[in-house]
Amino acid sequence: MYPKSIQKLIDLFSKFPTVGPRTAARFVFYLIKSPQEKFDEILRTLTDLKKTIKICSSCFYPFQGDSEFCSICEDNSRNKELLCIVEKESDLESIEKTKKYKGLYFVLAGTISGLRKIDKEKIRVEELKKRVRDGKFKEIIIATNPTVEGETTALLLERELKPLAVRTTRLGRGLPMGGELEYADEDTLSNALEGRK
Amino acid sequence: MYPKSIQKLIDLFSKFPTVGPRTAARFVFYLIKSPQEKFDEILRTLTDLKKTIKICSSCFYPFQGDSEFCSICEDNSRNKELLCIVEKESDLESIEKTKKYKGLYFVLAGTISGLRKIDKEKIRVEELKKRVRDGKFKEIIIATNPTVEGETTALLLERELKPLAVRTTRLGRGLPMGGELEYADEDTLSNALEGRK
Repeated sequence: MYPKSIQKLIDLFSKFPTVGPRTAARFVFYLIKSPQEKFDEILRTLTDLKKTIKICSSCFYPFQGDSEFCSICEDNSRNKELLCIVEKESDLESIEKTKKYKGLYFVLAGTISGLRKIDKEKIRVEELKKRVRDGKFKEIIIATNPTVEGETTALLLERELKPLAVRTTRLGRGLPMGGELEYADEDTLSNALEGRK
Repeated sequence: MYPKSIQKLIDLFSKFPTVGPRTAARFVFYLIKSPQEKFDEILRTLTDLKKTIKICSSCFYPFQGDSEFCSICEDNSRNKELLCIVEKESDLESIEKTKKYKGLYFVLAGTISGLRKIDKEKIRVEELKKRVRDGKFKEIIIATNPTVEGETTALLLERELKPLAVRTTRLGRGLPMGGELEYADEDTLSNALEGRK
């Protein structure tokens, strides 16, 4: 049996995404072995995080600052007629890094695995509908991941957004750059064939 | 670009064992989304950890309490002539769970990938030698993992402990319980054949 404060922290770390009890234990022993300065830095940064980070009330992306909205939503040079829905914060970062997208975003905070009411409540569908109603969007890009959950989520979003009479699009499918035909799975190859241009 | 306090925490989490920048980012967003009570609990438990946990000066296992040694080292019912060397704290826990071992332990804090002097300094070889010299051990079980690094480490330990004229043993090798012959790799099967009884 681990000492109490070790076990407690293992339990807390086990709830982090992708972390199981074994990895959580490794985290705790890593922290125990860390020098005091390093440890204090982690504590300080954690405390700072909750104090300084706010969630943008328009796109739900976390940001730092005094305003109500994040820097993307406040940026007047961005195209306010284009909205891109992403599953999670890091997907937004990935799209931003391409520098090819100049519209606005909406962070859904997850995916769903079914189309029941209980699934719907796990993601920000109502907030999204309000956002779309309030905005003047000409196109909404549903940029969920090409996974089963991502597809299910996209399906639900298309259904929910349909009554709002706004055009929805999806990200293109096909072979990834650097990929080779002989290693591509059937679905990817089928998508590449269908999406040929 | 992530806000500064998010990026800072991503960098810190990225240094945790098994964690890369992507997982670190997921941790941060998980924390941002956590309710304040949950977050405060994590902060409190972290602060407690460094305050209450000490490292046993005999076996290097972390423990909670006022004494100088951990409860295993202080337990007079344990066999003080038997020492088991483990790579890391969780390996000790795993052996304790079997309830088959009643000797003492020594936590090496890692493994090495080479036999140079610089490798040796990464683990507690000198502390181990001192421990063996000070103790009255009749057998030392080198319980490193059956991996390349574990084997290299065991090799070094055998070499370093040889002049101290104490018997060293290794954990048995063979098929794991529930394993099937047809799925066992060649090395495991070879070990099982060699170790037949």
